[in-house]
Amino acid sequence: MSNSPEENLKKMGIELPTPVAPVANYVPYTNAGSLYSISGQIPMEDGALPYTGKVGVDISEEDGYKAARLCAINIVAQMNLICDGDLSRVRKVIKLGAFVNCDNGFGNQPEVVNGASDFMVEVFGDAGRHSRSAVGTNALPRNVSVEIDCLVDIAD
Amino acid sequence: MSNSPEENLKKMGIELPTPVAPVANYVPYTNAGSLYSISGQIPMEDGALPYTGKVGVDISEEDGYKAARLCAINIVAQMNLICDGDLSRVRKVIKLGAFVNCDNGFGNQPEVVNGASDFMVEVFGDAGRHSRSAVGTNALPRNVSVEIDCLVDIAD
Amino acid sequence: MSNSPEENLKKMGIELPTPVAPVANYVPYTNAGSLYSISGQIPMEDGALPYTGKVGVDISEEDGYKAARLCAINIVAQMNLICDGDLSRVRKVIKLGAFVNCDNGFGNQPEVVNGASDFMVEVFGDAGRHSRSAVGTNALPRNVSVEIDCLVDIAD
Repeated sequence: MSNSPEENLKKMGIELPTPVAPVANYVPYTNAGSLYSISGQIPMEDGALPYTGKVGVDISEEDGYKAARLCAINIVAQMNLICDGDLSRVRKVIKLGAFVNCDNGFGNQPEVVNGASDFMVEVFGDAGRHSRSAVGTNALPRNVSVEIDCLVDIAD
Repeated sequence: MSNSPEENLKKMGIELPTPVAPVANYVPYTNAGSLYSISGQIPMEDGALPYTGKVGVDISEEDGYKAARLCAINIVAQMNLICDGDLSRVRKVIKLGAFVNCDNGFGNQPEVVNGASDFMVEVFGDAGRHSRSAVGTNALPRNVSVEIDCLVDIAD
Repeated sequence: MSNSPEENLKKMGIELPTPVAPVANYVPYTNAGSLYSISGQIPMEDGALPYTGKVGVDISEEDGYKAARLCAINIVAQMNLICDGDLSRVRKVIKLGAFVNCDNGFGNQPEVVNGASDFMVEVFGDAGRHSRSAVGTNALPRNVSVEIDCLVDIAD
């Protein structure tokens, strides 16, 4: 894991998407000093939403994992914007706040959110090991299956 | 948007309510240095709760927008307390964490939460542009329609 | 309340459990300077989950209070790890983010989450008075009744 984040992304065959600016009165990220808050990201890919509905009902837990991973890819795309393309400036992923669209009684949110957690560690190594909360919800924007926001410490 | 926050509030005809202290073992706000965390605010007005129930079922999306705006008014009332009445000390609204009481499948949380986001920018201009998460939930305290908490950077 | 946190815990007859490390790619806590983020804690006791299901349906509100208190005990166990056993280094509990597993229309999340808030003040006195959000959810990991995460300011 001594590779750079960029090398890790390349090895995984992942090209970061162009981060989409929100179309409302909020912004993709803000900061207080080196602590950046990244807005809740949804599993969007090429402008489409491949993962919608309740995990465990409308999509499988495996697809929920992929949805969480896609949220994380969009989070890293925002980090890349903050970092002017130099992701080695990411000092520590502080927290992921994850919401899983699911039915009453579904209890495997941790397994679903691992899709995002695994990705962070694959990209950043130890700097990607974060604290997190993973909870269920009955409804998410545009009926997506997962939404994740992020606190991250980024060096100047 | 070169007006002071106080002038903007006046232009909108908004008088900030007296912030109500929680009646439990928590406080309306805490801070670590200049970073303030404001407790989840509900749409309370003159001690009453005008917006309760599920957005899209019990109240319209337009009323949901107003509920989110009312949460934001209560957040700014807390900021005003922190700032000793000088809201120009608000350096940056860092994050709004918004929960919308709604039914399964409702997907317009972003439009609802814009009620709070628009208000922050109307009051603070660019300093009011924040990151946010907006998710659904099946239940909120006292059955209110929206709850929003806030991280904000406030100068000494 | 001039006792040390350790004395307060002893008076309450509470022995902090050994914090369990997550079995996934995330960690129990991270920090940016003195600001620590503790991962969402569930009401686990001796490896078991005594409080599961919806508060107000499957378990009483009183048991929900106890579940929130147990989450807080697990949060303090993590703090104890951060502090190398000297909890007087806890400068301020900044925020509790609380999720209560409940049915549509349940509105007493504040009373439930008081189980955690009361505990923080019993242990830390004024340093334990925190900001918080308390919301409902239709589902939590392993079907537990409460999940709570925490931001806390801890001195070196």
